Amino acid sequence: MQFLVTMEVTLPPDMPADKRETLVKAEATRARELIEAGLLVNIWRVPGRRANVGIWDASDATSLHAALTSLPMWPWLDAQVTALASHPNAPVPR
Amino acid sequence: MQFLVTMEVTLPPDMPADKRETLVKAEATRARELIEAGLLVNIWRVPGRRANVGIWDASDATSLHAALTSLPMWPWLDAQVTALASHPNAPVPR
Amino acid sequence: MQFLVTMEVTLPPDMPADKRETLVKAEATRARELIEAGLLVNIWRVPGRRANVGIWDASDATSLHAALTSLPMWPWLDAQVTALASHPNAPVPR
Amino acid sequence: MQFLVTMEVTLPPDMPADKRETLVKAEATRARELIEAGLLVNIWRVPGRRANVGIWDASDATSLHAALTSLPMWPWLDAQVTALASHPNAPVPR
Amino acid sequence: MQFLVTMEVTLPPDMPADKRETLVKAEATRARELIEAGLLVNIWRVPGRRANVGIWDASDATSLHAALTSLPMWPWLDAQVTALASHPNAPVPR
Amino acid sequence: MQFLVTMEVTLPPDMPADKRETLVKAEATRARELIEAGLLVNIWRVPGRRANVGIWDASDATSLHAALTSLPMWPWLDAQVTALASHPNAPVPR
Amino acid sequence: MQFLVTMEVTLPPDMPADKRETLVKAEATRARELIEAGLLVNIWRVPGRRANVGIWDASDATSLHAALTSLPMWPWLDAQVTALASHPNAPVPR
Amino acid sequence: MQFLVTMEVTLPPDMPADKRETLVKAEATRARELIEAGLLVNIWRVPGRRANVGIWDASDATSLHAALTSLPMWPWLDAQVTALASHPNAPVPR
Amino acid sequence: MQFLVTMEVTLPPDMPADKRETLVKAEATRARELIEAGLLVNIWRVPGRRANVGIWDASDATSLHAALTSLPMWPWLDAQVTALASHPNAPVPR
Amino acid sequence: MQFLVTMEVTLPPDMPADKRETLVKAEATRARELIEAGLLVNIWRVPGRRANVGIWDASDATSLHAALTSLPMWPWLDAQVTALASHPNAPVPR
Repeated sequence: MQFLVTMEVTLPPDMPADKRETLVKAEATRARELIEAGLLVNIWRVPGRRANVGIWDASDATSLHAALTSLPMWPWLDAQVTALASHPNAPVPR
Repeated sequence: MQFLVTMEVTLPPDMPADKRETLVKAEATRARELIEAGLLVNIWRVPGRRANVGIWDASDATSLHAALTSLPMWPWLDAQVTALASHPNAPVPR
Repeated sequence: MQFLVTMEVTLPPDMPADKRETLVKAEATRARELIEAGLLVNIWRVPGRRANVGIWDASDATSLHAALTSLPMWPWLDAQVTALASHPNAPVPR
Repeated sequence: MQFLVTMEVTLPPDMPADKRETLVKAEATRARELIEAGLLVNIWRVPGRRANVGIWDASDATSLHAALTSLPMWPWLDAQVTALASHPNAPVPR
Repeated sequence: MQFLVTMEVTLPPDMPADKRETLVKAEATRARELIEAGLLVNIWRVPGRRANVGIWDASDATSLHAALTSLPMWPWLDAQVTALASHPNAPVPR
Repeated sequence: MQFLVTMEVTLPPDMPADKRETLVKAEATRARELIEAGLLVNIWRVPGRRANVGIWDASDATSLHAALTSLPMWPWLDAQVTALASHPNAPVPR
Repeated sequence: MQFLVTMEVTLPPDMPADKRETLVKAEATRARELIEAGLLVNIWRVPGRRANVGIWDASDATSLHAALTSLPMWPWLDAQVTALASHPNAPVPR
Repeated sequence: MQFLVTMEVTLPPDMPADKRETLVKAEATRARELIEAGLLVNIWRVPGRRANVGIWDASDATSLHAALTSLPMWPWLDAQVTALASHPNAPVPR
Repeated sequence: MQFLVTMEVTLPPDMPADKRETLVKAEATRARELIEAGLLVNIWRVPGRRANVGIWDASDATSLHAALTSLPMWPWLDAQVTALASHPNAPVPR
Repeated sequence: MQFLVTMEVTLPPDMPADKRETLVKAEATRARELIEAGLLVNIWRVPGRRANVGIWDASDATSLHAALTSLPMWPWLDAQVTALASHPNAPVPR
């Protein structure tokens, strides 16, 4: 089952540069793992904002929540989740 | 360039059933053409609503608008468009 | 998987009384079937409004959408769906 | 009488881990007591957020407020309460 | 238990004057009955709008909904209901 | 003239317990004075929130503002004021 | 006592031109009367909209509501009213 | 003085095709005149919607309102106007 | 040209009383100057809030912005500006 | 492709005056570079606010995001981006 997830990330403005860099790297690593596990299908930046839009795939909302809280940036994230139903006009998945 | 497009469809409640059916079929046909042309990447239903969420790919907003207005249901559609930027953590496209 | 579903029902003000009555009865019948099928877990009226709040249980958003569109009042319904994750403090289901 | 209660929990980001853990445990204990007392009927997580949705049962809004303020996390909670009326299509309570 | 109820009244603009007058009189009669029954405690007009604000007293939201739907203008009403808890600083009721 | 006043109270989370207690007592004292002066007609808690709803009576908005700013909790209050007009269906004041 | 009043005017699109013209003239006449009576202090158009912003002066909200409903366009008006308190930095009225 | 103007256009769905075409042509003609008169500086479509965003230049809001109401589509337009101040970082006008 | 300006003032809660008093006096002085210069036409308090509503008169939005930023409280102000067009029913200015 | 970009700038209130001045100068320098590169087409102040409205030109949303994040004030900016399509009534670009 797929979900549309829109995240706002609010890192504290006084976070030291090295901590921020470590966090960004850890987030990239965890994102790769979630992609390999099939949980994170795709992700885009919302231009001009500290926000992203993603398509996620999880067995249910509990699994999705677990995936989102596994992100290193979780303490600074707020996500809006929309459950998605299949559409008859969608392309046949490859 | 990709866009997140959320559409609300408001068909008039007194539209005759056969006109509605013809329209739904024409919409499906046009959707297939837009998928083949690479404009419509994916589309999902928002459960409980006459609404859908889609990922569209167009060279710019003018091309996207042309694609949306080519839909047979365009006279009854209202779409919200969000331009999407690439995200460094996105999966490598196949 | 459970969902919180809030519905607004907007019957046309000039719907004949007998059609309305037939519709209300058909809705009650379908609701009972959805309860027996385990899809509709509980439902409450929002006082002062033509609206209700329900807890629904479906394998995914596609099944939930099918259940909602099976309601006789579907043509006059608009629903807001929130996917629900399990909470560690929830009571143990009987 | 039942209520739909949606809570947002905003713990201060710099709360020490052990204080947070103590608080989470105390909240779980109090939740169990409220379940046993019949005040908290059910509770779900809103995925991706520090929020939950619950069905509460209290004789009136004053009792409900007392129950909510008895939660150890009350100082960091903000709740939205909707009074619920019975719906003729609801399942017969067991 | 008391409730704050805000109503918007949207009579159809082409309702004949005599039907409107009959309705306004019937509404006044029913309001008096609800006052005598202790359900309607007080009511004010929101200036400049077809809206009113009232304090209602009902055993629960189900009784409140029954009172609201007993109003002759119910088919054209939409109400927002807020359950009210007692406040320690409130005046002692006479 | 009467006003509907909805207040949100945001005490700083790190206010010492004794200061908070002193403030709550001073607020109760001032509320009694405003009730005796006929300015505060009634007040209720909004359950689950640091908010209240009140009916106030003042000769005009300037007097109402003076009454609100006389509250010891004024520095932490934000109020929404709605001027109320008399309603023909209101009960005859005793 | 003064009020800020923002009005939206929604004349039916199919109102005959002569009826509209008669209405606009009647509205102008009534506005002049309200100005002379000191009720309407000033009024401006919100550019690009069928809306206006006005400063009104009435003894209370009941009188203001009576003035607003005396406008010939009242059946097509919706007004938002804000009660205004005096400001210490305001110019001394001439 | 410049203004940001966002317009929503809501043509009646049952407007005959030839009337619509005539209207679109008249609108184009009037737009050219407003451009030549220096009132309409630039205009863009909001993709997926019957809406546009424009930069307008008028001596004041009264002149701007006159320009907007001179549009043939004015009866079906609703515009949101934001007055714009000059920015020190703006390019030097050519 | 006139503008409706609504200001919210958010002084830091821990600002020393004497600094606050100095600021309030400086604001009053500057307001008098702006009144004499014809920029500030009138101003009212929004009861129950740290907010005011004013009618301002400036040659354009750039001059208005300069007037607003000349207020000693500018660092703690946020203003919403609506450009006003003349209304045919407005009173003849004295 | 053009974009409408609305920015809110929230500099910390306790930023030292010299740091603020340096930042304002650096922002002006970068704005000039973006103008020369054709990315920033025009920019206006929203009067009374720390906000601006701009027309930007970029090959896609990714390039636009890069331009916005190259601004020295980026850490304190939040931008809303609307993709713009060409309008048939727009003036012919010079």
